[in-house]
Amino acid sequence: MAEKTVCLTGKNLTISQVKEIAYENVKVEIAPEAMKKVQAARDLIFELDKRGVAVYGLNTGVGWNKDKVVYADRYDAYNKNLLRSHMIGVGPECTIPEVRATMAIRLNGFLCGNTGVAKEIAEYYLEFLNRGITPVMKSRGSVGEADIATLTAIGLTAIGEGEAWYGTERMDSMAALEKAGLKPLKMGPKDGLGIASSNAQGAAFATVGVIEAEEFIERYRRVFCLALEGLNGVLDPMDESVNAVRGYAGQAESARECRRLLKGSYLERPWEGRALQDPLSFRCQSAITGSVMDALEYLKKQLLVELNATDDNPCLLPEEDRMCGSPNFEPLSWVLAVEMTGIGLGHMSKMIAQQILRIGDPGFSKLNRFLTPQEGSVIAYGTIQKTVSVLDAENRMYANPCSLDFLSMAGNIEDTASNSAMAAMNMRKIIDNLYYMAAIELMHAAQAVDLRDHPVLGEGTRDFFEAYRKVVPYLDNDRNMSEDIQKSYDFLKSWEI
Amino acid sequence: MAEKTVCLTGKNLTISQVKEIAYENVKVEIAPEAMKKVQAARDLIFELDKRGVAVYGLNTGVGWNKDKVVYADRYDAYNKNLLRSHMIGVGPECTIPEVRATMAIRLNGFLCGNTGVAKEIAEYYLEFLNRGITPVMKSRGSVGEADIATLTAIGLTAIGEGEAWYGTERMDSMAALEKAGLKPLKMGPKDGLGIASSNAQGAAFATVGVIEAEEFIERYRRVFCLALEGLNGVLDPMDESVNAVRGYAGQAESARECRRLLKGSYLERPWEGRALQDPLSFRCQSAITGSVMDALEYLKKQLLVELNATDDNPCLLPEEDRMCGSPNFEPLSWVLAVEMTGIGLGHMSKMIAQQILRIGDPGFSKLNRFLTPQEGSVIAYGTIQKTVSVLDAENRMYANPCSLDFLSMAGNIEDTASNSAMAAMNMRKIIDNLYYMAAIELMHAAQAVDLRDHPVLGEGTRDFFEAYRKVVPYLDNDRNMSEDIQKSYDFLKSWEI
Amino acid sequence: MAEKTVCLTGKNLTISQVKEIAYENVKVEIAPEAMKKVQAARDLIFELDKRGVAVYGLNTGVGWNKDKVVYADRYDAYNKNLLRSHMIGVGPECTIPEVRATMAIRLNGFLCGNTGVAKEIAEYYLEFLNRGITPVMKSRGSVGEADIATLTAIGLTAIGEGEAWYGTERMDSMAALEKAGLKPLKMGPKDGLGIASSNAQGAAFATVGVIEAEEFIERYRRVFCLALEGLNGVLDPMDESVNAVRGYAGQAESARECRRLLKGSYLERPWEGRALQDPLSFRCQSAITGSVMDALEYLKKQLLVELNATDDNPCLLPEEDRMCGSPNFEPLSWVLAVEMTGIGLGHMSKMIAQQILRIGDPGFSKLNRFLTPQEGSVIAYGTIQKTVSVLDAENRMYANPCSLDFLSMAGNIEDTASNSAMAAMNMRKIIDNLYYMAAIELMHAAQAVDLRDHPVLGEGTRDFFEAYRKVVPYLDNDRNMSEDIQKSYDFLKSWEI
Amino acid sequence: MAEKTVCLTGKNLTISQVKEIAYENVKVEIAPEAMKKVQAARDLIFELDKRGVAVYGLNTGVGWNKDKVVYADRYDAYNKNLLRSHMIGVGPECTIPEVRATMAIRLNGFLCGNTGVAKEIAEYYLEFLNRGITPVMKSRGSVGEADIATLTAIGLTAIGEGEAWYGTERMDSMAALEKAGLKPLKMGPKDGLGIASSNAQGAAFATVGVIEAEEFIERYRRVFCLALEGLNGVLDPMDESVNAVRGYAGQAESARECRRLLKGSYLERPWEGRALQDPLSFRCQSAITGSVMDALEYLKKQLLVELNATDDNPCLLPEEDRMCGSPNFEPLSWVLAVEMTGIGLGHMSKMIAQQILRIGDPGFSKLNRFLTPQEGSVIAYGTIQKTVSVLDAENRMYANPCSLDFLSMAGNIEDTASNSAMAAMNMRKIIDNLYYMAAIELMHAAQAVDLRDHPVLGEGTRDFFEAYRKVVPYLDNDRNMSEDIQKSYDFLKSWEI
Repeated sequence: MAEKTVCLTGKNLTISQVKEIAYENVKVEIAPEAMKKVQAARDLIFELDKRGVAVYGLNTGVGWNKDKVVYADRYDAYNKNLLRSHMIGVGPECTIPEVRATMAIRLNGFLCGNTGVAKEIAEYYLEFLNRGITPVMKSRGSVGEADIATLTAIGLTAIGEGEAWYGTERMDSMAALEKAGLKPLKMGPKDGLGIASSNAQGAAFATVGVIEAEEFIERYRRVFCLALEGLNGVLDPMDESVNAVRGYAGQAESARECRRLLKGSYLERPWEGRALQDPLSFRCQSAITGSVMDALEYLKKQLLVELNATDDNPCLLPEEDRMCGSPNFEPLSWVLAVEMTGIGLGHMSKMIAQQILRIGDPGFSKLNRFLTPQEGSVIAYGTIQKTVSVLDAENRMYANPCSLDFLSMAGNIEDTASNSAMAAMNMRKIIDNLYYMAAIELMHAAQAVDLRDHPVLGEGTRDFFEAYRKVVPYLDNDRNMSEDIQKSYDFLKSWEI
Repeated sequence: MAEKTVCLTGKNLTISQVKEIAYENVKVEIAPEAMKKVQAARDLIFELDKRGVAVYGLNTGVGWNKDKVVYADRYDAYNKNLLRSHMIGVGPECTIPEVRATMAIRLNGFLCGNTGVAKEIAEYYLEFLNRGITPVMKSRGSVGEADIATLTAIGLTAIGEGEAWYGTERMDSMAALEKAGLKPLKMGPKDGLGIASSNAQGAAFATVGVIEAEEFIERYRRVFCLALEGLNGVLDPMDESVNAVRGYAGQAESARECRRLLKGSYLERPWEGRALQDPLSFRCQSAITGSVMDALEYLKKQLLVELNATDDNPCLLPEEDRMCGSPNFEPLSWVLAVEMTGIGLGHMSKMIAQQILRIGDPGFSKLNRFLTPQEGSVIAYGTIQKTVSVLDAENRMYANPCSLDFLSMAGNIEDTASNSAMAAMNMRKIIDNLYYMAAIELMHAAQAVDLRDHPVLGEGTRDFFEAYRKVVPYLDNDRNMSEDIQKSYDFLKSWEI
Repeated sequence: MAEKTVCLTGKNLTISQVKEIAYENVKVEIAPEAMKKVQAARDLIFELDKRGVAVYGLNTGVGWNKDKVVYADRYDAYNKNLLRSHMIGVGPECTIPEVRATMAIRLNGFLCGNTGVAKEIAEYYLEFLNRGITPVMKSRGSVGEADIATLTAIGLTAIGEGEAWYGTERMDSMAALEKAGLKPLKMGPKDGLGIASSNAQGAAFATVGVIEAEEFIERYRRVFCLALEGLNGVLDPMDESVNAVRGYAGQAESARECRRLLKGSYLERPWEGRALQDPLSFRCQSAITGSVMDALEYLKKQLLVELNATDDNPCLLPEEDRMCGSPNFEPLSWVLAVEMTGIGLGHMSKMIAQQILRIGDPGFSKLNRFLTPQEGSVIAYGTIQKTVSVLDAENRMYANPCSLDFLSMAGNIEDTASNSAMAAMNMRKIIDNLYYMAAIELMHAAQAVDLRDHPVLGEGTRDFFEAYRKVVPYLDNDRNMSEDIQKSYDFLKSWEI
Repeated sequence: MAEKTVCLTGKNLTISQVKEIAYENVKVEIAPEAMKKVQAARDLIFELDKRGVAVYGLNTGVGWNKDKVVYADRYDAYNKNLLRSHMIGVGPECTIPEVRATMAIRLNGFLCGNTGVAKEIAEYYLEFLNRGITPVMKSRGSVGEADIATLTAIGLTAIGEGEAWYGTERMDSMAALEKAGLKPLKMGPKDGLGIASSNAQGAAFATVGVIEAEEFIERYRRVFCLALEGLNGVLDPMDESVNAVRGYAGQAESARECRRLLKGSYLERPWEGRALQDPLSFRCQSAITGSVMDALEYLKKQLLVELNATDDNPCLLPEEDRMCGSPNFEPLSWVLAVEMTGIGLGHMSKMIAQQILRIGDPGFSKLNRFLTPQEGSVIAYGTIQKTVSVLDAENRMYANPCSLDFLSMAGNIEDTASNSAMAAMNMRKIIDNLYYMAAIELMHAAQAVDLRDHPVLGEGTRDFFEAYRKVVPYLDNDRNMSEDIQKSYDFLKSWEI
């Protein structure tokens, strides 16, 4: 892994590259032509100042203070003040991968060549990533028209203020810089604004959310297939032709993947007691999960634009030798996609909950009520439905949009917002709850398979079942369910895809 | 218009064709090869019955009754009962264009050749459209896993029960059939299910919603441009290069259209008192509106799949000489897109509201407070902000997803749902409120232009302003605002695009 | 009824008096001592003006214009402008009873003696009520910090502008005044503000909401009791001692009323096939309905304060010979109670929905599935559950609070709000949907009783069942359900309590 | 404090007693007559079993298993299984005070004498409280129709399973029992159900929520008064007579307390630059906060019923020598009050947010923009508004009701729910966010007072300001705001009331 590198160009950063940088500490490089664009924008800044043009964030204040003049001899002081006064986040703190994703995205943004920060700023982001410096960044504070409130933490570490992680050790930023062999940066014009005025935190949260959602769907698919085997369910709704004539990409892929996992399963053959049709929560699984996959495709499409484009204001246009006021910090297009995906995940929540209820019902499973091994003496999976219900209730809450709830701020100059980071966080909270729900479904699925006396499982569910049973054994008698849930959750989250 | 026809093939129905059929009464034809597919599916049904295969909705009951057998000699009775017992809607009633859109979409669905209804059913839908028979259909009742509750109204009219419009006259269905020279249909096997089991109502509501949203955006754009002229606002954020480097299609188009409308406007030249940057509600307009346009593109993409694909269960596959259980009635993929668009429109609501507040504020407009022609003696547009606020509050309510709120029904067989029709209706309620809000903004915009002593307007705003001033004159003294709002709303809704 | 009068004192207006005035056109009187208080406040106004005190709304503008001076010779013009410019409502229009309730409440507010309007203003409200003049008032426009946007309609009619109903005939206000033998009023100082600045519309909507909620609960109770008889359910949970030891007033009353209605029913005796315990939706009915009754008690308590107290600003204090700025137009305390009640009604919605699902399930009713008279050939009450589900989904939407969604208006002077009228309207929309749901439950309940071969019904359900069966007969074969729903709804709404 | 004891009777437990037990480790006693009632119920259980009566949870299963028979020789095993299988919570874990409050409330419930558990069960709860044993209990799992999912943790510790805190040390339950000199309990009939079937967790969360809300309001009031001094605001809206004529108890008390704190303040005298009226967020503070106090009064009233009444099913009625099925586990009446209070706190959130925005606006404060000590060179409190906005957005989310979002569980027997614990938790999350918001307002208030050159403060704000300035000094230059927020939050949370 040590040899692998990601080369940033400002143009083609992918979600899996962000994942490699954030979670796998892959080394990062900057493409030389990209660095030239950074420099060109910087040159333009000074040229414009020379020409006497008012440059927002350079020789003027920002926000409501945009009418105040900033003088050249105060660049360092002004930009440091800007970082300090814009450091306004409240907890909880971001995780190290979240901050790394943020830095990678912001760095790629600099490389578009529309920002105007000093080359050194970009270089420091690179070094932070490569030398393992991670500023301590709080998660709440941005309203999603540039994440000024939180991104400032990175700038503060660069000037030796605030706290940072060096590797996995937490310390004062100054100490971290020293350990890494770096000196505190001096701030030049627009550097503070360039660091702070970006959607990198929200975009990082959304990118991590996409990664988590896709991983969850992959893992959940095994749980579903095992549950279908537990139920002795019908394969028809995942028939290739049937899904082909419908025409939704997500649904077709979802069905195909399930067919692959269930290849060789006893479900492919007639079996006593199988119903003509299963409840919708099983029957429509490929369509419902597929709808979320469609939503994710749209989200990725819109998010990749953000990851590879400028969100700066003003927007430097070196090729046209000018600078222009810009609305490019508006991330709404992908924030809407985040919220749609959240609603979609809310539907997966309902679907999983209903599947759990059905599989515990003898009317559908033809097995003992609540999958007890022995009616009357073992209670098994009855009450656990309540946990499912309350997790789904939380998901219902997080599925509502939050992007519309904001104040008109800064003397009414900043009178719209998107709450991008909160929206992404809400989506991710749903995913975490879904892991708990899928864990509970897995408990049911495996128990049903055991009670059904082990019919032949599919190619993709066989090993999964075996591995799971090493962690959580057959429920032959009542035991502490809370522990089983946690073990199943941990099993699922660590299942290699 | 009389000559124009739309030829349905089951493959390429467009949103503008639905609009022509629904609103403009364009004649409809069925492509001959499509009709062959209808017949092929029908033949397969009888073939399967002969082979003794259990066919859902043919020789078995539907829903929880799927385990009940239906005998051949009772086809007509059974299918009529199915229509009657599934006629469960409650008011308000659909409009005639809504029902026409529904019939067109369902008819196109038959032509995919996976349903299995008699050819006569398809022909009756065609005749209803062409001869002006519109069944009276209630709007509430479907949970959006096929709109059984409401689509049955069409079947009832076909058998001569219930009520219908003939042209614009309301009467018993039997009378309408007679006037149109049609006889009540006899129902064959699966005809009832084929009529009822489709997402055509929800899809029609969503299609109408898309049409309304796009028309609104077109009209609103003029209001915005005039408001920007009223404000003496900044054009920079709509600069071509600036929007190009960002990379969002909707934003770029939105900015381009505004530039076109504002061509020649005094805003293209320096002007005294213009700010360096406008508030976000103005500055980010192209990006916010553009985000909704992006969302609409996704919605149209997903909706067009629905409009041109089977949503039947079971799915007849004549080419493979078989029938298969199917999840194809699951519309979630486009329903999620509807709800995303609703959230996006909620952002337009906030944006418009904030624009109105800003333009009434001398700090931004440099005009009199609340755009009064005379401070102290004329109150003008102060209190009207409350109407804006309460309309926005309603929009906030309708922007929440409703698709997640459903019961587990039919003995828990039907344990997921999408509320497609309600979701589309909520989106459309936002649009109607937006027209009121844009009407109020138009009142402000025109007043501000008047107060600013008529600087040169843009190519696209000039005529718009003139036409509006013929309907609502300059506010030189306080008058009944409620009337002005209504006139402005009517003006806007009838503005030819 | 003609002889009955309600005498207003400003101190003890009750909800049932508002009902009499609004719906039954009972004559209204003003207590003489109350009229003296109106005059005292008026005198103080002029006295203060003489002393040179700045009086908000008298010799100053209102809202953001509060810094503008108004001169005495312009009182009539200024106050008329105020009415016109504050006339900003949008449709739908209020019903006549809603406007009458509004006028009664505002009139009673004048009688508290803290407003300062001319005696004639109060007298005109009285005459409007007694002579059948009802101004045409739009329902949307207020944000619930005084319903300025809508109450102005009453003032406009008083000065002969806008439209009004005379009896049940709609006409120009001037014509209505003439028909009633009244002349247009001349406006004096603070008259405009006194008319407009009150929570009377929101309070009227809430009062009407309370009336509707209590009527609904009364009627629903019969439906529930009949449904319990249809189910062959358990009476235990309504046991007197059991409910007494719990200690909730609403629950105890709710159980007592049900016991009264079910007196003599076969449910009081053992009966074959009865379960040990019913599902929670039946078992907890008295507690759930009781919780809503508790909430209504709190709502009434808080609302009666509003109905009998000043909501004026400034607040005239004649006894202390002074006037004082006031926050008394803040209705939040009862608006919160409205929203709590809405959530409670949302629980009734869930409960009714679940009861309907259970009674159609043979596992619980021991009757035929979906209460069909003949399995296989009659489909009966299967699909109708979808209508229930979608009505409940709407109720879920309306149960969310709306009071928190407002803009900061009027140059940020008006930066909080309560949306009182919208909150009350949302609650009332739930109630209307509940009538539809209870209608559907009634269809089930009566059918179950019929299928159960008419066991002895309770004293309170017997007549109810008989009367209902005259409107909607036993379902012996499938028929248009939509019509049955509407008939049941009408039956229920007109059931005399 | 060591000497103080709380004597539980089942009849008059107060919220402040719960606070003493939960937070201050006050010793607990059981009133002897109460213990007699516990025994009487227990005796009745055995008597009924002897008579052959089916007793839910004694000789039958629970929930959907209620039709299964439980035999006497399996009491211990059955009840232990019940505890284990009902142990289904997921994290986060409850705090020690939360669990102590839960135990105190459940213990008091036993003392009502309607449960039927063995005396030893009650005694163990007492000993756990007095000897410092606190079972490790997870917070999520209950749907609020008895908190079975979580309360089982207490039973598990009593039988020596699961984990517990002994004092502040965490260990296996068995070890904790040993350290405390207790032996694992043997379970008798109905003991498992008696332990689990109660609303004690939800009630404890709500009680803690009430305590936190009241403490917050007390502390916030000081912040508000200081902010009003910072603003040079108007006292009129808190005038005694003005608030008296309105008639709302909370508003009157709220105004009275503010007057007390502001006694002697320069606000009592005329002062240059003071406005005629302040923005609503300041003007209506006493009414808005008062509305929340009214809501809290109602919540306390309904909650105290729960704290001092049985929530058992079946309900033992020893005085009537019988047992009866009961709906007494339905907590909806107080859960509705919790959700109303949450909405009310949401209004405080809006109000605080708006106050912060206003005080940073020179148009209102007549101080420097964003309260900077030096315009141009110090940025001060500009960006921090974003943190306020996003916290308020979270509060908006938590203010929506969650009680309506549940599944129909346990074979549809458990088809309603209240989500009591989640509702209370959401309310408490708002309060925590409000502390952050009030902290930010405190930063503004103190800065404004400093900038205003220290006019004479009120009797209640003087010391508060001085104490605060020792923790967070005057902002003379930009610094890390995130740290100031955290210090202010800690200061506020630890301010002794």
